[in-house]
Amino acid sequence: MYTYTYRHRVRYRECDPMSYVYHTHYVDYFEVTRTEALREMGLAYKTLEENGIIMPVIDLAVRYKRPAHYDDLLAITASFTEAPRTRVPIDYEVRRDGEETLLATGHVTLCFFNVARGRPIPAPDAVRRIFERVLR
Amino acid sequence: MYTYTYRHRVRYRECDPMSYVYHTHYVDYFEVTRTEALREMGLAYKTLEENGIIMPVIDLAVRYKRPAHYDDLLAITASFTEAPRTRVPIDYEVRRDGEETLLATGHVTLCFFNVARGRPIPAPDAVRRIFERVLR
Amino acid sequence: MYTYTYRHRVRYRECDPMSYVYHTHYVDYFEVTRTEALREMGLAYKTLEENGIIMPVIDLAVRYKRPAHYDDLLAITASFTEAPRTRVPIDYEVRRDGEETLLATGHVTLCFFNVARGRPIPAPDAVRRIFERVLR
Amino acid sequence: MYTYTYRHRVRYRECDPMSYVYHTHYVDYFEVTRTEALREMGLAYKTLEENGIIMPVIDLAVRYKRPAHYDDLLAITASFTEAPRTRVPIDYEVRRDGEETLLATGHVTLCFFNVARGRPIPAPDAVRRIFERVLR
Repeated sequence: MYTYTYRHRVRYRECDPMSYVYHTHYVDYFEVTRTEALREMGLAYKTLEENGIIMPVIDLAVRYKRPAHYDDLLAITASFTEAPRTRVPIDYEVRRDGEETLLATGHVTLCFFNVARGRPIPAPDAVRRIFERVLR
Repeated sequence: MYTYTYRHRVRYRECDPMSYVYHTHYVDYFEVTRTEALREMGLAYKTLEENGIIMPVIDLAVRYKRPAHYDDLLAITASFTEAPRTRVPIDYEVRRDGEETLLATGHVTLCFFNVARGRPIPAPDAVRRIFERVLR
Repeated sequence: MYTYTYRHRVRYRECDPMSYVYHTHYVDYFEVTRTEALREMGLAYKTLEENGIIMPVIDLAVRYKRPAHYDDLLAITASFTEAPRTRVPIDYEVRRDGEETLLATGHVTLCFFNVARGRPIPAPDAVRRIFERVLR
Repeated sequence: MYTYTYRHRVRYRECDPMSYVYHTHYVDYFEVTRTEALREMGLAYKTLEENGIIMPVIDLAVRYKRPAHYDDLLAITASFTEAPRTRVPIDYEVRRDGEETLLATGHVTLCFFNVARGRPIPAPDAVRRIFERVLR
């Protein structure tokens, strides 16, 4: 398993009238975390895109357990468990930094998509090799 | 079943470099649609909140099937199948207005939460009656 | 002067811990209002873009006078005072629908930009004619 | 003058169909930058708010000069030039990190507002002293 943790300070614009982080922002937190996780692996999403391949989200799930508040420092963890064939499943956990209590969990599945051909493709070999290396 | 459809024109700020609606905005579309669905039923979320009761999202799932584009007029349908005891499950479908093809489906579960007591509560009687009336 | 009013229901996600509309969302309200104003004039921004011309924002100003709240129905008015040569200046006023009191005022300047050539261009004749017709 | 620079990686959700950062996000960048600037000075906005004082934005201006792109690392600089009496004027500059070229400039004015009394107040002494110390 490859695990990456991104830290995010909750911003005022992300908090609702209850002073809780509004639920849609967790989905944005997930995106930042996987982008940085892939960069850390050695896979820049921007480079992939410049080669005509995008990785759209095909499904998404979140379970909200406890609220996060303004100015909290969150630790968002993304876990990758397998070298992708056609899809990249990612599991998420959100906590306050340094605390055990789960605030939310999530799951996102990405696929690989060739923009010019307009269709899903298997994981490019270069991408598979990167995953195999970090998952070893 | 009680079904409500909200129409939304896709905005430039919602579209990503592929000219697709960025995936997190569907979660916002779901919120607008259920707020207007509840208002149509006779249940203003604002009134509920003024009475110390909020309805937080406890889980959320989306399946993305086909992209939506800039300036598309979307029809987002929310379906309510049962009078709530403690939770309100809602199913969503997203299409281009007037078309059959599904762009995305989703599911959201809300609960009822008493702010002063800081804990989940059963559906208030007034809310249950509203649902029973529209689901008949 | 050509004036167009767009009505917008304030959403929960737009409100901050003070229950006020967070200030950045007014800038989004301005965008929706001018897009719909241009459409009403007979100018679809999407068509312009398909012809390789975009209208980027080159400056922006907002004065916040009084807060807007969750579930308020806002009336956002965009005023166009001249047929554009190279720039489109737009003035905005934000009120609660049916009320006189100003909540905010704003100003946005757009220009015309040829994407292929990578440079600003004068207003296309077709666009100028549309403005001249509605400003008459 | 007190100057603070915040670095921000441009996210996919912030980019529009032209692959440019959509203009409203600069206003969010300004907020993050001043929050971290105030924290660095020794002034946590959260503490102020817990004491019943908020600092709403009363006006805002942005000039957009050149586009920022996906995955750019931006350096957003906030400059404070005076110890506040009733208002906090802040000047902004946005560049790619390590580059001289200005992408955007901005100005934001904050005031101090007593929530319980519902009215603007002069800068609290503690806040004034913090500014006087860092501006020396």
